[in-house]
Amino acid sequence: MIERQLHLGAFMRPVSLHTGAWRYPGSYPDANFNFTHIVSFAQKLEAAKFDAFFMADHLALLNMPEEALKRSHTVTSFEPFTLLSALAALTSRIGLVATASTTFDEPYHVARRFASLDHISAGRAGWNIVTTSNPDAALNFGLDAHVAHGERYERAREFYDVVTGLWDSFDDDAFIRDVESGAFFDPAKMHALNHKGPELSVRGPLNIARPPQGWPVIVQAGQSEPGRQLAAETAEVVFCSPRDLASGKALYADIKGRMSKVGRDPDHLKILPAAFVVIGDTLEEARAKRAHLDSLVHYDSAIASLSIALGHDASNFDPDQPLPNIPETNASKTGREQVLRLAEQERLTVRQLAQRYGGYSGLAFVGTPQQIADKMVEWLYEKGSDGFNVVFPYLPQGLDDVVERLIPELQRRRLFRTDYSGTTLRDHFGLPRPKSRYA
Amino acid sequence: MIERQLHLGAFMRPVSLHTGAWRYPGSYPDANFNFTHIVSFAQKLEAAKFDAFFMADHLALLNMPEEALKRSHTVTSFEPFTLLSALAALTSRIGLVATASTTFDEPYHVARRFASLDHISAGRAGWNIVTTSNPDAALNFGLDAHVAHGERYERAREFYDVVTGLWDSFDDDAFIRDVESGAFFDPAKMHALNHKGPELSVRGPLNIARPPQGWPVIVQAGQSEPGRQLAAETAEVVFCSPRDLASGKALYADIKGRMSKVGRDPDHLKILPAAFVVIGDTLEEARAKRAHLDSLVHYDSAIASLSIALGHDASNFDPDQPLPNIPETNASKTGREQVLRLAEQERLTVRQLAQRYGGYSGLAFVGTPQQIADKMVEWLYEKGSDGFNVVFPYLPQGLDDVVERLIPELQRRRLFRTDYSGTTLRDHFGLPRPKSRYA
Repeated sequence: MIERQLHLGAFMRPVSLHTGAWRYPGSYPDANFNFTHIVSFAQKLEAAKFDAFFMADHLALLNMPEEALKRSHTVTSFEPFTLLSALAALTSRIGLVATASTTFDEPYHVARRFASLDHISAGRAGWNIVTTSNPDAALNFGLDAHVAHGERYERAREFYDVVTGLWDSFDDDAFIRDVESGAFFDPAKMHALNHKGPELSVRGPLNIARPPQGWPVIVQAGQSEPGRQLAAETAEVVFCSPRDLASGKALYADIKGRMSKVGRDPDHLKILPAAFVVIGDTLEEARAKRAHLDSLVHYDSAIASLSIALGHDASNFDPDQPLPNIPETNASKTGREQVLRLAEQERLTVRQLAQRYGGYSGLAFVGTPQQIADKMVEWLYEKGSDGFNVVFPYLPQGLDDVVERLIPELQRRRLFRTDYSGTTLRDHFGLPRPKSRYA
Repeated sequence: MIERQLHLGAFMRPVSLHTGAWRYPGSYPDANFNFTHIVSFAQKLEAAKFDAFFMADHLALLNMPEEALKRSHTVTSFEPFTLLSALAALTSRIGLVATASTTFDEPYHVARRFASLDHISAGRAGWNIVTTSNPDAALNFGLDAHVAHGERYERAREFYDVVTGLWDSFDDDAFIRDVESGAFFDPAKMHALNHKGPELSVRGPLNIARPPQGWPVIVQAGQSEPGRQLAAETAEVVFCSPRDLASGKALYADIKGRMSKVGRDPDHLKILPAAFVVIGDTLEEARAKRAHLDSLVHYDSAIASLSIALGHDASNFDPDQPLPNIPETNASKTGREQVLRLAEQERLTVRQLAQRYGGYSGLAFVGTPQQIADKMVEWLYEKGSDGFNVVFPYLPQGLDDVVERLIPELQRRRLFRTDYSGTTLRDHFGLPRPKSRYA
């Protein structure tokens, strides 16, 4: 029997989600927008046998106040298809997951680009389906206001059907290329989709051969009610952001339970929470690195974020004192309680709290490689996850620490592969190759 | 004074426009859809100092009868942005021109992808603006019928304004990345477009730095009245398909004349007719190669194309006799006369005529390297063109013949560069870098 092993993605757009990352000593300030650097990151991740290189995406500038925006290293980024295709040419095994929006793109384009990326990469493409939550995106696509959440998810479900249908336009063995007879393909093995639905009307066929993986791997990140249901019905990988093991386990059980109800094998979906990983020789050193990183978040940006989370203007608080008692407000109760708990648990000053919150406030593993491996195995065996989507604190050092120190520790414990056993992203995740709907 | 030199593009999607190409002895039957082969072609073209690798595009299967379609090596092709981005990673100088439709895509997407390709390739991107003439495309994008020609061109003009405006979202020097102060960019150097026009509404700013070339090179291929006008107003390279030098000169004079009228320097647009090049040791050998290639066009496909061109069912004619006299019909007079002239000039049988017509019937240079160089210099000095977009008859041999035999002949005559003098596609074409509209 094969023991359970972790699946690891690398969250690479932006290359760090921490807003102070580009200012950390020894970091590349332009890491998020320097093609040469990104190539070196992808090649290191591949040498470390990561399952996938994952690109989030945005169809507008992030809607943050100018004070924060002007300090954000994410404001200029590569577009996913162009970057991942270029990386496909310079790597040979690591999976390449691009985000594409079902709200602001056309299924014929999306199907073609993923099919083409899958061919160019010999079966390493994945599609992170998003409905695009940033309302500013609508303004860049001819609309005056954002599309409502429910409508976005209805379109997403139909969009998925159209895209996967278009991928099946040609049977796997349609192209015979018989030089003697002159028959390039067998027309009986070509299928027009003729889709007419409430949101979309697409005739087909797609003008590209069926992808090597049949369908590129389907990835999703939504955690709302319709997001979970869409994932249970369609996704093969879920990226999520539970704040702790308890909420991770609840989400894991919920999505896998929904899968059983719709008749899918729960093993055919891998759940990967985002995990911010900071490694030190000792726990104290790792914490000091994180504290230094947090200190590089500009206080003006940080205090604005904290005020929003608390629903209370915190800009007049003494930055070097603990958070004072503040009255209840209209702010989201969960978010507020999370902030208050964090302040108390780690005994943070207002400044530290604001910078933690404005830096990166999600699930974090901070410690020695051994301590982090212990945490990861706990999540794996407690069914909190099937692995993680690793968020790097700063580049290149934070990434180097993971590939040079954490990965070998996981490999020693047989928690992570020492080599790829297959060539496609489906192989890495242990996912079946979908049959054509016409098979 | 610098002598006039040719600019050479390579027409690479499909890798050959000749429908019999994949059946020619020694050819790669899958050349049009084999990434490894295409990489080797791109690298050979770069070693030969070609200006650009050019990808046409289609948003549906080509609308041809099934008899022809099933024998077409173009039926499966890579999508332009994914392929060119992958090639960008494996080349360093050759320009990369992708086709993108203004009728079936969104300006925010198009602007982003070209900007990203331009950054990844360090300034080698070009945008071939098309309005998409194949009516079948509309059926893949939610429409019941094609958008009218005039409306497509109106949208194209506005689309161009929006895309170029989005490219200027950030000034060239907006990104300061001052680690000390924490300022990543200067907000005074970011601009929202706020475009609201008859067809498009796009706020901006684009979420990517200004392209290295300022704007990727603007390419066009339309030869209709509104196509010529759009080219004169906006294009920097025109790909066209005049059938002979006289019509080439007329088109050249017309477009450059229109440029003067709108206040543009005629030198800032390069006109490159498509030229099908077949090379032999002797004229007879080159002609024999072409005849052999034409003979590989399946007669059933060929006779169907010929019948359409003549407006008369030719399937009952004796294939091995000259074309009989046929009555006048409703078919396009120009097309019909062209076919009749071709039949008479080259004394072709019905079979040969049909296969020529169904293979490749555009401008062709067939002969020794010296004879072809003579023709090219004639076009250049008679102001029929500024160079050519070379169409290869079959791959790899037809391409190898050009880079190993024709290019050295052109270089000996100082008609073509022996090395790149710059690094960007604008450098290769001698085009100025556009200033930002906010400069």
